[in-house]
This record gives sequence, C-alpha cells and structure tokens, in this order.
Amino acid sequence: MSIETEKRNTGSRTWPHPEVVEDFAQLRQRAPLIHCITNSVVTNFTANVLLAVGASPAMVVTIEEVADFVHIAQALLINVGTITTIDAEVMLKAAATAQQTNTPWVLDPVAVGALKFRTDIVVQLLSYRPTVIRGNASEILALGGFAGGGKGVDSTASSLAALPAAVQLAEQTGAVVALSGELDYITDGKEIITIPGGHEIMTRVTGTGCSLGALIAAFLPVTRTAVRAASAASVIFAAAGERAFRESRGTGSFGVAFLDELSTIGIGEQLVP
Amino acid sequence: MSIETEKRNTGSRTWPHPEVVEDFAQLRQRAPLIHCITNSVVTNFTANVLLAVGASPAMVVTIEEVADFVHIAQALLINVGTITTIDAEVMLKAAATAQQTNTPWVLDPVAVGALKFRTDIVVQLLSYRPTVIRGNASEILALGGFAGGGKGVDSTASSLAALPAAVQLAEQTGAVVALSGELDYITDGKEIITIPGGHEIMTRVTGTGCSLGALIAAFLPVTRTAVRAASAASVIFAAAGERAFRESRGTGSFGVAFLDELSTIGIGEQLVP
Amino acid sequence: MSIETEKRNTGSRTWPHPEVVEDFAQLRQRAPLIHCITNSVVTNFTANVLLAVGASPAMVVTIEEVADFVHIAQALLINVGTITTIDAEVMLKAAATAQQTNTPWVLDPVAVGALKFRTDIVVQLLSYRPTVIRGNASEILALGGFAGGGKGVDSTASSLAALPAAVQLAEQTGAVVALSGELDYITDGKEIITIPGGHEIMTRVTGTGCSLGALIAAFLPVTRTAVRAASAASVIFAAAGERAFRESRGTGSFGVAFLDELSTIGIGEQLVP
Repeated sequence: MSIETEKRNTGSRTWPHPEVVEDFAQLRQRAPLIHCITNSVVTNFTANVLLAVGASPAMVVTIEEVADFVHIAQALLINVGTITTIDAEVMLKAAATAQQTNTPWVLDPVAVGALKFRTDIVVQLLSYRPTVIRGNASEILALGGFAGGGKGVDSTASSLAALPAAVQLAEQTGAVVALSGELDYITDGKEIITIPGGHEIMTRVTGTGCSLGALIAAFLPVTRTAVRAASAASVIFAAAGERAFRESRGTGSFGVAFLDELSTIGIGEQLVP
Repeated sequence: MSIETEKRNTGSRTWPHPEVVEDFAQLRQRAPLIHCITNSVVTNFTANVLLAVGASPAMVVTIEEVADFVHIAQALLINVGTITTIDAEVMLKAAATAQQTNTPWVLDPVAVGALKFRTDIVVQLLSYRPTVIRGNASEILALGGFAGGGKGVDSTASSLAALPAAVQLAEQTGAVVALSGELDYITDGKEIITIPGGHEIMTRVTGTGCSLGALIAAFLPVTRTAVRAASAASVIFAAAGERAFRESRGTGSFGVAFLDELSTIGIGEQLVP
Repeated sequence: MSIETEKRNTGSRTWPHPEVVEDFAQLRQRAPLIHCITNSVVTNFTANVLLAVGASPAMVVTIEEVADFVHIAQALLINVGTITTIDAEVMLKAAATAQQTNTPWVLDPVAVGALKFRTDIVVQLLSYRPTVIRGNASEILALGGFAGGGKGVDSTASSLAALPAAVQLAEQTGAVVALSGELDYITDGKEIITIPGGHEIMTRVTGTGCSLGALIAAFLPVTRTAVRAASAASVIFAAAGERAFRESRGTGSFGVAFLDELSTIGIGEQLVP
C-alpha cells in the first residue's frame, strides 16, 4: 500500500457500529426487493441470506422480463459466476436498464481475468456504471489492469495487495469497490473503510462471497451512500461469520449457523457482542 | 368472503387428521416418481423435501426428454419462478403431454400478473388443465382476473381476501386451487378446506412455498381426490413448520429442522403432537 | 457374480485405510481445482462437498469458456442429471478437451438408459474415454448393455447384481468403474475393491451420489491410480455417512452433519473411529 492510499484510510468498522445498526434497522423495516441475476451454485443460499436479513429476493432471469423487473426492483445484483451465452445478453440488458432507471446495482465479476468470455462481458457491464463492484483480490487486480493470477473463483492475492488497484478502479469507474479478503476494504477512491473479522471457514462454504454482493445490493436503497451500503453489509457478514464459527462443528453447520446469525443479529440481543 | 363462500366451508384440518395420516402412509409406501420442472432457486430444497417424505423426485428439463418423462412419472410439477425462453417451451410440452396421458399435474404460477411473459405462458399452461393450482393470494387474485398488486414472489394480499378468487378460479378451470397464506385454503369450487398452522418464519426460507407445490404433486397419485392431495400436503407442511420452529435458532436451522420433521413426522412418534 | 469376478475381488477398504489416509492428506495439501459440469439440483451441495474436503470447485458451463477451463483445472466432472440441449454441446466439448489435454475426468451418467437423448450423449461422451465412470446399478447395467429397468435417478437393482456389468464396462472402456449401492465396488476390470459402510439415509438426501463423482474427480490428480482415487472417495463418503447418521435427527440434519464430517474427518481425531 502506498503512503497515499494509507492516508485515505478513514477508519475501520465492526458490529455494532452506530451507522451499521441504523442502516440495518432501515433494511429490516423497508424490506427492499432485490433483483438477483446470479450464478447457479449460489441462488438458493443467496435468496436465504436476503430473506434472513429481511430483504425480499427475486431471481428474474429471462430476456423477456429482465428490463421490466429492473423497473420494479429497488436494487440489482449481477454475478457472472456461471455465465452462459444467454445469461450474458440478459445481464447486459439488466445493467443497461439499471443505468437508465437509476436503479442502484452491484457487479460481482467472479473469476474475471481468468477467462476471456466473461472478461469481455464484464468490461461491457462496467460501461453501465455499477454502483458497487465487489470482488476478491485477484478479481480487483484483474479489473484494475494489474496481473491477477486468479485461480478459478478463489483469490490467490491478499486483499491488502489489491488495495491500490481497488482505489484506482473506484477512481476510474466511479463505483464503490468492495474488496473482500482476510480484511475487507470499501473505497470510493477517496476514503477507505477497513472491516476486520469474519473467519477463514467462510472461504470453505460456497456462496459467502457471492451473497455478500447481494447483501450490498439490499443495503443500497436504504443507505445514504454506497460506501455505507457496502460497509454495512461487510460488517454484518464479518460479525455473523465470527459468531457462526463459534457454534459450528464443521463447514455444514457453519452455513446453517451463519443464516441463523444473519436472521437474529441485533434483535433480542445486547448490541455489544 | 361472501356468505356463499362461507357456506361452502367444510371444515379445517390439522395433523393428525385421519385422512392425512392414511394418505401419508400411502405416499411413503408407494414412493411415487415426481417430475419437477421448477425454478433454479429451489431445485435442491424441492428434491430434499420430496426425498424427506419418501417420494422420488426427478428434474428432467430438456425438450428432447420431457414428454418421455411425463409418461414415466406418476405426477408433474410446473413452477414458473425463474422461467426462461427455453423453459417455456419445455413447460408447455410437459403440460400438453400430461393432459394427453392423464398424468396429474400441479401448476405453481409464481409472480403471475407481475410480469407479462410468464403471465402469457401461465395462461397457455392453464389450457392444459392442471389438476391443482397452488399460489399465494396475489397470484390467485391475478389468475382470477382480480387486481393483484403482487410484489415479486411475495404476497401482499391476505389469503382470506383471495378466497373468493380461488373459488371462482376452481370453478372456471376445473382445477383444485391451493391458496397459501397465514391460513391455507383448498377448494374445488364446491368445498373449502381451511388449514391453520405453520409459522411466519416459513416466509423467510426460500422454497417452502414452491416445495409445497411439489408435495401436492407427490400426493396426487396416492389420494382419492385432488382436494385430499392438496390438503394432506398443506397439513403436513403446517405441522412440520410449527414443530421445526420450536427447534430452530433462526432461519438456517429452521430449514434444516423442517426437513427433519418431514422425514420423521408420524414415524416413531405419538400421533397426537 | 461369476466365480471369475469373485476371484478378482482384492479386498475391502474402510476408514482409516492407510492408502486412503495418505491420499486424503495429499488432497487437502494440494487443493486441486475441479471443473464441475453437473446438474442443477446438486451444484450447491457439490461445491460444498468439495470445499469441505479442501478441494477447489469451479462450475464453468458455457461453450465459450469450457475448453479453456479444462486446460486450467486439474480434473473434470461431467454429470448429465439435468442435461439440456445446450449442456450437451458443452459437455462434449469439455470431454474432448479433457482427452486432448490428458485431464482426468469422471462421467456420471445419471439415468442413462431411461431416456434416449441423454443415452445418446453419454455414448458419445464415452468415446472421449472417461478416467472413471460412477453410477448406480441401473446405470451401470444400462451402460454395459444389460437390461436396466431404471426408475428415474434411483437404482432398482442391487450393486452386487451389477458387478459383472461393471467389470465388463471397465474392460470395454478402459475406465475405472465406481458402482454405488449398499456396497460400493470399484473396478478397473482386473481388481475389485469392495467398500462397505455408509447409511441408507444417504439415498434420501439429494446429491450424495452426484457429489461422490465430484470427490472422485478431486482425488484423481493426487493419487497414483484411478482405482485409488475412486476408492478413497468412496471410503471417505461411507465413513462420513455413518458418522453423520449418528448425529442426525432426520434428513435435514444428516446433510449438514455429512458436510461437517467431511470437513473434519481425520483432523484432530483419533484415526481409529
């Protein structure tokens, strides 16, 4: 990290940060309808994450309906994890419609840089100006034009190593960048929010990263800024992940406990963990 | 509800209603093969619900195979939740084949009325005379030609408010209508069975509604009437939902406990809960 | 079973068999990247099984990317469970590429013999010489040219009854055949490894069979022979299944406990169960 990016670092957030508590209360009260075009591995988990926190997920994925539904939904998620020829067309139409209608949207560029087809589509999607880009270090490095070395969907670089690329990507695109890793970083190119916590076991349950993108989308309609939306989602995921790990016997019960925590955190509990 | 529809109300059912116990024993003994063409969010949960109760699910979804498999299966479910251009063709062929072969089938018209494409397909599917139509209040109101006001896949109307539409839809189509909500209603246009129970948390785990459609399909080949099939499925879901809630810490463990209850209810337990 | 096939029977394996322990340690250390083209019902569970054991799953399923990703991955799984017109093309290209690049690959011919389209595709896939074929008795009988009588995806024949067909199929194709059932058999046409264990409840949780195919793929890059890879995967599944059953209250908690066991077996425990 250069001295310049360090200077911009404007603090870290953990649960129960007052802004996050406030934003989460708004989310639960307003139950925003979130349009998810996501990968086939995580559709079920993503829907359950959104339902757990009180949002309303809807997976509308066909070319005939996608533009109409972007009009109806409060936010959109596009995740290219298992993109197909047909999906690409749907995603581009959804993103174009989101730009036209000022619907906030999150781009999750899974494995960008590793495979040409999705990389080309992601570049096109960027032109529709996502509100937030969420990715791991390899993906953010690839998007930022750095050498990625991505290995499938897992990141082989540390999130700190990719922070300069994240800042630059935010500056270039106007998007808030949510960089996931051992530490999460949220940046709009000016400020950098650091989010510690979570647990390494989260990398061994599919969909924890992808559903973070969905949760960011769910916060976008209820928070004042996209930085707050991405920060709130990351803070809640980190807290739920830490707590869930303490209750789990392995990766299966971790996934279950993670949904349990998301559905109960801050309700009927002391706000100091 | 008009006086007329009230008059038709022929009682409510809860577990262990003797007819439901009898029908469930038949289901477990005969393990019917259920052909599911359902949405991508709930395929896994739907298969696990059917396996939990002792049925045999099979998701055969390609145009080359769908007619042959309708011939093999004992019942068919069509759920339009994540319908695509290609799916629509497959669903229409499956429904047409079911009509030709007298295979009982369930239509779950997810979000009908909210989006034009699926609404058009659902109207075409209705012409193949589903045995049962399962939906929430918004969907049944939309199908019945009432103003729906559906919000994505969630219902914004109460099930009681949609009961007259359900009765009329049953009369118009010849299908049994299974109307899901805080109370479930099953009607063939003449009698109305009310099914209390379940728990509000079921609306926060994806697939509980969609897999109810699958369970109704599983009962169709083993019960004397479609009203009994839809009633048995709804009673078992309500009982499993209530019990599962008592064992759960949040939405994640609820989903797990729900499958546990479905796989054990009535086996090795007192039949009085 | 003929006397001839009995003679080839070269013993049975249970956890902790020394070769399996050694191979599993290698898998966890090397975390191979496994390219999965599998059915829509089990994508999530399959990814979670691979992550639980320490492998790295990736579902890359579009025609533009599939050949490139076969080059990147250490092994490939093709499972035809919910095959579509488009999937068929993708699977054939993946298999052809795997043969060209000497990437080991597993074919899971779900419901082969029961439906013409998938049977034709599976026959074409066989020409690309899968390293391992994994199936239940009905599927192996159908592939071996015997009368199958398959009922959807479940097997109606016993695995012992299909053992001669498995041996013959191995001889004909050069593939190792992993025949799943009450007993699992692994054969290359010369030796036969018998693997007892597991639990009947595994047939009531979707994806346990399909994810075994994925786990065999994960072992292929780290074991000396394909017989060892298939044996190791089957032994670990049997042990995890037995243990998980003891912790479960029904089919829901079984699925969770199964992943827990896969993620912890042999770590921080006595190696004698």
